[in-house]
Amino acid sequence: MKISIIGVGLIGGSIALKLKQKGITEYIYGIDNNSIHLEEGLDLNIIDEKANLEDGIKNSDLIILAIPVDTTRTLLPKVLDLVSDNQTVMDCGSTKSGIVEMVRNHPKRSRYVAFHPMWGTENNGPKSAIAESFSGKAGVICNKEESAKDAFTLVEKIVYALDMHPIYMNAKDHDIHTAYISHISHITSYALANTVLEKEREEETIFQLASSGFSSTVRLAKSHPEMWVPIFKQNKENVLDVLNEHISQLRKFKSALEKENYEYLGELISNANKIREILDK
Amino acid sequence: MKISIIGVGLIGGSIALKLKQKGITEYIYGIDNNSIHLEEGLDLNIIDEKANLEDGIKNSDLIILAIPVDTTRTLLPKVLDLVSDNQTVMDCGSTKSGIVEMVRNHPKRSRYVAFHPMWGTENNGPKSAIAESFSGKAGVICNKEESAKDAFTLVEKIVYALDMHPIYMNAKDHDIHTAYISHISHITSYALANTVLEKEREEETIFQLASSGFSSTVRLAKSHPEMWVPIFKQNKENVLDVLNEHISQLRKFKSALEKENYEYLGELISNANKIREILDK
Repeated sequence: MKISIIGVGLIGGSIALKLKQKGITEYIYGIDNNSIHLEEGLDLNIIDEKANLEDGIKNSDLIILAIPVDTTRTLLPKVLDLVSDNQTVMDCGSTKSGIVEMVRNHPKRSRYVAFHPMWGTENNGPKSAIAESFSGKAGVICNKEESAKDAFTLVEKIVYALDMHPIYMNAKDHDIHTAYISHISHITSYALANTVLEKEREEETIFQLASSGFSSTVRLAKSHPEMWVPIFKQNKENVLDVLNEHISQLRKFKSALEKENYEYLGELISNANKIREILDK
Repeated sequence: MKISIIGVGLIGGSIALKLKQKGITEYIYGIDNNSIHLEEGLDLNIIDEKANLEDGIKNSDLIILAIPVDTTRTLLPKVLDLVSDNQTVMDCGSTKSGIVEMVRNHPKRSRYVAFHPMWGTENNGPKSAIAESFSGKAGVICNKEESAKDAFTLVEKIVYALDMHPIYMNAKDHDIHTAYISHISHITSYALANTVLEKEREEETIFQLASSGFSSTVRLAKSHPEMWVPIFKQNKENVLDVLNEHISQLRKFKSALEKENYEYLGELISNANKIREILDK
């Protein structure tokens, strides 16, 4: 199977490495506006050839979009314009409603499968790509009833080849759940970084005192705005909903401290501790 | 050198393992109210003998308190009551002002060195102890002018034996910086866990969709209230100060989203990205 990867970055690169390792594909075309990423992709044996959009698509059985969600919305209809009923298109966007909405009435809608791998890091570019990235994580497929059977089956095969377990959801539910579980973590982490940068004017002190705990909590704050502004924009209502809840949860800690109600503070912490059972089960 | 470790848990256990590995000590007494931790400490070769407070201290050159900051405040004066001018006492508490204040006028004050290793995990108990925990991290020594020269020199030797680099601060500054860099991360993480638990009622969905990013941001939320309520209590003013800033930083994200000011949202994120240069330098 020949594959075009549109966006030879962290996600596209990691998918390419894994699918090559699994023997799923014998040839990968890399399509990217960033010529450095294309060269790096060739050097790292992530892609076999750089291509323009038309040539890459023409020669591929599967086209994978691994670009920010705003450019996914713009580019996906153009990609679908170019495919036949023997080709399949999938994306990797972290939001899904806006993207599926964009192509709802496209004559080639059924060739597209909406996908979101629940993995990412704060890094970007093909040099950060890792074949084992996705192992054990969830691969969400949305609105599968809108995809042709063979297109869906192919993407499901890709999900298993990535060592992910597929989860099926409608796009609207996906965006609610990811706002709760993924998008809010990023805002928390960005706001924490800004808090520390505002309060702690001595960068050297941050560097010296930063423990593994701080580094862990603030890790996502390294994630780039090019990827995340479009996600927050496309998932605005759900993100605002959970952000309001988060501010109200922080206010509970504030109130417990101000009132010196340490019993309540302990209850808030004990409640938070429940996340251990859920994550470590 | 013989050492008493008061509190055979994550921190005390990790210190013991490392100091044994480095050949700094030939015998460690374990003192703990938790008899299970003492047995585990013996089994894991973290301690050589369990002891009561009086016997342990009597036979030790160095006494290390590795217990929550509230019990450190209570126990430290009693420990100092029992030591001679040939013995040294250090603690590992995450707050320092309240503790040094407690023994400011103690006749044996100079035998005590206020210490805080900038390392911890969300786990506890001797089974979580790791010899290499502290490598490369900062070991903060506070108010060193209040300690006898030989006591200070011994603790500095311990800091180097733990492969930490010593930093010297007064206790008041320590508590401000740790509020900014360590304590707020914990509140952020607790509040994030509570937010997700409140919004996402399907625990199975949290488990299934949790990516490495979410797990990283919420990791500290697994930390126990027995350790953290006393820290927040003793560092109340500084924690409230930085918590107010954090809530105001989150409000900026909220406002940018509500007003659909995506340029400003991008600026907030770009500013947060600066943490990468500081942490990865």
